[in-house]
Amino acid sequence: MVRAARQLIRERGYNATAFSDVLELSGAPRGSVYFHFPGGKTQLATEAADAHAREQITIIDQAADQADSAAQLAGLYVDLGRDGMVASDYARGCGVAPLVTEGAARESADVGETTRRAFSAMTDRLAFHFAAFGVDRAPARELAHAVIAGVQGAMVTSRALRTPAPYDAVRTVLVSQAASVSPKTSAR
Amino acid sequence: MVRAARQLIRERGYNATAFSDVLELSGAPRGSVYFHFPGGKTQLATEAADAHAREQITIIDQAADQADSAAQLAGLYVDLGRDGMVASDYARGCGVAPLVTEGAARESADVGETTRRAFSAMTDRLAFHFAAFGVDRAPARELAHAVIAGVQGAMVTSRALRTPAPYDAVRTVLVSQAASVSPKTSAR
Repeated sequence: MVRAARQLIRERGYNATAFSDVLELSGAPRGSVYFHFPGGKTQLATEAADAHAREQITIIDQAADQADSAAQLAGLYVDLGRDGMVASDYARGCGVAPLVTEGAARESADVGETTRRAFSAMTDRLAFHFAAFGVDRAPARELAHAVIAGVQGAMVTSRALRTPAPYDAVRTVLVSQAASVSPKTSAR
Repeated sequence: MVRAARQLIRERGYNATAFSDVLELSGAPRGSVYFHFPGGKTQLATEAADAHAREQITIIDQAADQADSAAQLAGLYVDLGRDGMVASDYARGCGVAPLVTEGAARESADVGETTRRAFSAMTDRLAFHFAAFGVDRAPARELAHAVIAGVQGAMVTSRALRTPAPYDAVRTVLVSQAASVSPKTSAR
């Protein structure tokens, strides 16, 4: 059910994702909902957002394993987002952002804390890897913020424009910045 | 009513913005709704998104008037977004993006065309000004895509994290890129 909720939130946002849609997509029996999710839709959405953030962190770790530099990591992470967007035919966005933009994060302290934690965790992990590639702590953190924001924004404008051009554009600026803050030997 | 709809969409998204909320905020008489908006909530939302895009284009033109270079324009535009976000106490996002992330742009051809046109117009206008500052056509367009995506993303993560750090981070990468694609005499 968490997986189904996450998929629907990515496609149509939070408010348009009804419990009944999640049940239908997951095939879970109706009676199980309030047993597993006594906190209702809010709980289901926060668990879906947590799952989304965990998956993003795994993707960041895998990209860091394949990369030899901060610039390569930034480029790989953007490319993975681009590939996912194109593969979904511009139908699938972020599993966390709708909780922010639909005001749910403001109405519920739990949701607010979940979205804060999700974006913090993703930013921290990227900053950690950038630092491991030799970038100083402050520029590594700033670069991580720029990568997460760049990918979030490309997700929105690419969907609207139905072109991967926004991903390619943020890739260019992020890779160039990553190279310029990297130690000269590992910059490329 | 368009102004009220736009404000609510920026604060809570599309689906959570009910006609009754728009009426209450705008003080418009109930009977006027279907007279002025025979297309219903979809029409109200597309007019709000158009108004949002027009305002952004005015802001871009004003920033271009104040700037002496592509790098200054990029920096000013990001700063204006940052100031607005902080002034709203992290409560106000984009007037177009929710139509994309909540799937409305996919369900309705009108909404889809409106969101495409809104982001296209903003990107085109930025690209036009970057080119006027001497940036070649292709990098001007790519930079414009990166600025719009960067600001869109910062709007989401800044709201979630309740800090302007994402704006400052995208500002750094965009200004640096703008300077590097500018003619050497006007780069700073």
